[in-house]
Amino acid sequence: MTNVPEVFWTKYDSYIFDADGVLWRGKNPIPGSSTLVNALIDAGKQVIILTNNSTKPLSSVLSKLKKLEYTSVSEKNVVTAGIVTADYLAKKKSNLPVYLVGSEGLKSTLEEYGVKSFGVGPDPITQYTDETILSNIDFKTPVSAVVTSFDSHVSYAKIMRAANYLNNPEVDFVVTNEDATFPGDVPGVVIPGSGVVAAAVKTASSRVPKVMGKPSEYMINYIIETYKINPAKTVMIGDRLDTDIQFGNSHGLDTILTLTGVHTQTEVDKAIADNRLDLVPKAVISSIFALMK
Amino acid sequence: MTNVPEVFWTKYDSYIFDADGVLWRGKNPIPGSSTLVNALIDAGKQVIILTNNSTKPLSSVLSKLKKLEYTSVSEKNVVTAGIVTADYLAKKKSNLPVYLVGSEGLKSTLEEYGVKSFGVGPDPITQYTDETILSNIDFKTPVSAVVTSFDSHVSYAKIMRAANYLNNPEVDFVVTNEDATFPGDVPGVVIPGSGVVAAAVKTASSRVPKVMGKPSEYMINYIIETYKINPAKTVMIGDRLDTDIQFGNSHGLDTILTLTGVHTQTEVDKAIADNRLDLVPKAVISSIFALMK
Repeated sequence: MTNVPEVFWTKYDSYIFDADGVLWRGKNPIPGSSTLVNALIDAGKQVIILTNNSTKPLSSVLSKLKKLEYTSVSEKNVVTAGIVTADYLAKKKSNLPVYLVGSEGLKSTLEEYGVKSFGVGPDPITQYTDETILSNIDFKTPVSAVVTSFDSHVSYAKIMRAANYLNNPEVDFVVTNEDATFPGDVPGVVIPGSGVVAAAVKTASSRVPKVMGKPSEYMINYIIETYKINPAKTVMIGDRLDTDIQFGNSHGLDTILTLTGVHTQTEVDKAIADNRLDLVPKAVISSIFALMK
Repeated sequence: MTNVPEVFWTKYDSYIFDADGVLWRGKNPIPGSSTLVNALIDAGKQVIILTNNSTKPLSSVLSKLKKLEYTSVSEKNVVTAGIVTADYLAKKKSNLPVYLVGSEGLKSTLEEYGVKSFGVGPDPITQYTDETILSNIDFKTPVSAVVTSFDSHVSYAKIMRAANYLNNPEVDFVVTNEDATFPGDVPGVVIPGSGVVAAAVKTASSRVPKVMGKPSEYMINYIIETYKINPAKTVMIGDRLDTDIQFGNSHGLDTILTLTGVHTQTEVDKAIADNRLDLVPKAVISSIFALMK
């Protein structure tokens, strides 16, 4: 891949960046990322920071961006799978709450869109006994949807509740994203992601969920509607083939893989060998630093 | 299907019964089941009660059988996925323990085969904070295998431990069975099974497990080796197409579906329509009572 920087600055109107593994890794910024993002915004380009991570409300994401010196970034530059989920649920205009297997942050995001939820926090099986579990776990409360996401308090009781709510085909099944793991601060340590909770509830319920995050069409539709992007003049920069790159490729965007996150050149070579062209990026860079002028 | 009882009594040497949904449903016996099983044993037939449920040690299963008046049944008539798992692990002759995401009962079964394990019981995330989770969740203890099964205490911490142990390709991944749900006492209530824990750990680890229970070959190999059955003179009676019937069909046994458990005639019709002949039983009966002389 030659002359990425030239092409990168002239070819596109809109720039979509994944966050974790691209702009930062856990708590550590990727060198050059804030300078690049600020420069694009200051040059009048449309910049969207697009993350499947929905554990934090928008205010927290913005605080982190400010702390990491993304000085030109504002609220309108950030889209999370949580926002797409909240927007989807708000448009259903149900008076019933959703049962949420997720984080406090996602609950806050839903609230900002007027969507009530319950279920956040510990619900350990230890408060039930063998004899009372069936009668004492509450799944009689009417709900409009079951929403699953990252939940560090996921438990048997929560999975059972979710499966029993979903036993009613009128209850919608929505998952923020199906990422199996998070890229973490500590190399070699596996951090289970939202996909783990989704897999558990899918198995228990035999239901197929609507996935809001990358690579699904819910997210691109939200972006096209909200930002009026022209896919032919848009580039997606990400660190995962199965979310970021597939998302870009399947919606007509250019795609760049940066090797500071989950996937490596080995996975790119494998995707080419397997003829999975939907997973093959247009370009591969070692780090976002390679995109600086 | 005509004359099942005639054929049933004369054609076979060996009779394999699934337990939950066939002989009983939760705590309630299926009428006629103990009389039938006792009569077969008393007539000199080989009878195997074969269950994927591995939450109870053999002694508990035998107590339940005695209580439900299976007077002719002894230890040699019962095989659980837990026993097949314990036998498999014991033959590896490792000095390292296994990390068990499962029940006290399975831990006891493993111990009877000389296999040490740890991990049973609550391991809630509430004892960790955001800051300490990576350093305080222990996955440095050397283990020979991760074993998953039914675990009412399944938690984020347990899934994370399992995924990190499995990050070492030399650590074996063994699951007792992948049944998504249990047939319960209360109609309409979904009770998540071992398959839910397996799905979560598979997703977090990206590893493919060895499945010990029905319909896998580990279970039939254990039975052929232990009981010297002749598949051509053996019948499998079960309530699930994807475990019992597939297990029987794929290993050359005759198969009978009884409609007192999970699957119904609708699922049989669907399997026929989908040309999934591996899931289609040779015969369908309303209840085990139909097999009485």
